[in-house]
Formats: sequence, structure tokens, C-alpha cells
Amino acid sequence: MNSIPTATLLQALHWRYATKKFDPTRKIPALEWQALEEALVLSPSSVGLQPWKFIVVTDSAMKEKLRPAAWNQGQVTECSHFVVLAVRKNIGPDHVDRHIARMVEVREVPADSLAKFRQMVTGNLDKARAEERLDIWQSHQVYIALGQFMASAALLGIDTCPMEGFEPAKFDEILGLKGTDHASIVCCAAGYRAPDDKHAAMKKVRFKPDDVIVRI
Amino acid sequence: MNSIPTATLLQALHWRYATKKFDPTRKIPALEWQALEEALVLSPSSVGLQPWKFIVVTDSAMKEKLRPAAWNQGQVTECSHFVVLAVRKNIGPDHVDRHIARMVEVREVPADSLAKFRQMVTGNLDKARAEERLDIWQSHQVYIALGQFMASAALLGIDTCPMEGFEPAKFDEILGLKGTDHASIVCCAAGYRAPDDKHAAMKKVRFKPDDVIVRI
Repeated sequence: MNSIPTATLLQALHWRYATKKFDPTRKIPALEWQALEEALVLSPSSVGLQPWKFIVVTDSAMKEKLRPAAWNQGQVTECSHFVVLAVRKNIGPDHVDRHIARMVEVREVPADSLAKFRQMVTGNLDKARAEERLDIWQSHQVYIALGQFMASAALLGIDTCPMEGFEPAKFDEILGLKGTDHASIVCCAAGYRAPDDKHAAMKKVRFKPDDVIVRI
Repeated sequence: MNSIPTATLLQALHWRYATKKFDPTRKIPALEWQALEEALVLSPSSVGLQPWKFIVVTDSAMKEKLRPAAWNQGQVTECSHFVVLAVRKNIGPDHVDRHIARMVEVREVPADSLAKFRQMVTGNLDKARAEERLDIWQSHQVYIALGQFMASAALLGIDTCPMEGFEPAKFDEILGLKGTDHASIVCCAAGYRAPDDKHAAMKKVRFKPDDVIVRI
């Protein structure tokens, strides 16, 4: 592994901020965007289930439709790529089997060898369903993908704005998710900051390390 | 911003995997660990509230105490740094005021100028509390930090293993969180893979991009 210097990592993480005003004339080049899609695809998730879909909106008309359902925030239409992160609802054996089929395909192992894994995973899902925390558990995983996506974007010099301020039910209707297995839970605009976004110049506010880190 | 090449990013994200067996003799150097702590501190969160604490365990005796409450998984004791990510429970005006005090300090603005922000944030928290989704919402933010942490570690050539398989109540008791405002929700072991971790050689399994990415 060719790792990067710590200074490069920290510079990117300090540079990033929740971009409020994007430059609508700047689009993310195809190669960079492809890498960010791959960062989403590669995100870690609990037992590898990948309980998600990522809806990437670049169509202007669709962005215009979504914007009113996102408190009319300009980032929706002015960013380059608007991503809606959706969770797989009520995840169950069919999804597990799809994952196992993919394991068989990629690792070239017999499906039989994964019987114990299948039992463990479906058992865990059943338990979470019975305890009414199944969708919450899976939605946590989507936020891992969001974290990986924003960090990756920053390292590529691409701005993002995570957005929870939208009406999920309306988004689902507009995006055709209504009645499907997936529901939108969080969004992320990506692109390039406008030169006059005053938020870019504001100092980043974080608690002091000793207020959030406990060392034992 | 000095961005990194897409190939460097993707190499790191492909290289990472949920490390099942760490090399107990290898410790993360201080400079690298400091950068990873900073990555945690810098994580984005909803309206910047940082509803979290990160408990970093390097003490062998404490790791030994935690391990039985984590299904006896070896990663707990064999990793270099074991991080427990805890969420701020029932977050309210006191936390918001702490954040605002920090904004005033860092940005050198009068507290009065943040009155509207305070009202908006506490209003949102109250609404979420009334709808019984306050702790869920805040726990989502912790997973953003987890995502940023794991991606950052990979870029520095440091292995991680995210872990949800543990007993939060027991962890809280052992770590002294019981009865406090914070509760452990997810963990992440960090360090270096053992040369004989057979999981390292397994091909990464992800759905095909077209199965998880929808382009509009």
C-alpha cells in the first residue's frame, strides 16, 4: 500500500466544509466522479450486506423537482452531482441470498460453504426485526457510506454538503422509490464551492480534542 | 488544496477490509494515531453538533476486560488502538450552548449573532425528541465519524475492523459511561493485519455498481 502523508489527509479534512453555495458552472470530471461512485460501492457495511442504493442526480429537470422538497436549498440544483442515499427497508433472506450469490461469484466458492454464514446473518436480521431496530441498524450503515464519500471527495478536492433537511416521502415519490424496497434517508450534494460562498472562509468549529477523546 | 490522484484513493479503499486478525506486536506510531484522532474530531455532523465521544483504549488490562463483552473477539486485545464510539444521549440545549460557546470562541463572533441558530437547532432537537427519533438521529452522525475514520486509516495504510458485535450495556459499565450522557454504539479496532489473517487474501465482495447506483 502506498499510503499518503498524514499532512495530506489532514489538509483535506480541514479544507472540507458543508458547502452552502456551489459554482453551478463547474461539473465534476467523469474520472473523478467514477472514483467517488466507486468509493460509495466500496463502503464497509455490517456483515457486508450493503443495504443501500445511491441515486445520483445530474439531470437539471430532476434537480428542479427535488429542490422544493429540500426546503428549497440551492445546493440541490447548483451542485454538480446530487446524491440521495437510500436504505434497504425490512431487509431479509432475499437480500442475504443476493449477497451470497455475489460472494459465490466473486470468490469462486461453493454456496454450501456459506450456509453457516447465511444462518448467522438471517438470524441476526430476524432478531433485529423482532426488536424493531432492523431499519435503524441498516440506516446506520448508509451513514458509513456517507462518511467515506465525503472524506474521499475532500481528498480529491471535491466539495460536498451533507443534507438531512428534506422530505423523504416526497423524495421517494419524485425519485420513483415509493412502493419499492428502498427509502431515501440522507443526501449529499457534490461539486465545487462558489468563489463567494461566505461559509468557505469561516473557521471550522470543533470541540477541543480533549472534550471528545477519552484515552484509556 | 493538493488533492490526491483517484488511483491512490481507490487503491486504499480496495486495500482495506475488516481485519479479523491483528498483529499484536505492531503499534500505530504516535504521529499517525494523532492524525486519526484528528480525523475523528473533524468529522462532519448534523448542524455541527458533534454528538459524540470517542474512547480510545490502548491499555491492555482494559482491553482484556472489554473482550468478553465483545463475543470474545480477538481484535479487541490484539489491535493497536481500540476505539469505542459513543453517542450523546437525549441531546438538548446544554449541548447546543456548549457548541455555541465554542463557535463564539473560534470564530470570534458575539453570542447574540447566533441566537437564531440556537433557536433553530434546539427547535429541531425538540421536534425529534417529541417524535422519539432524537437518539437515532444523533447516532447516525456517529456512523459518519466511523466512515471518515476507516477511510482515513486506509489512506494512511492502517487497518481497521468495525465492530457492532458487543454488549453496549456491559461496555458502558466497564468504560464508566453508565449513568452518563453518553452510550457506546459501535467500535472500531485499528492497527496492522497479522501476516496470516486469511481474510486479507479474500477478494472483496461488492454488488456490481449498476445494482447499487441509479443515475438520473
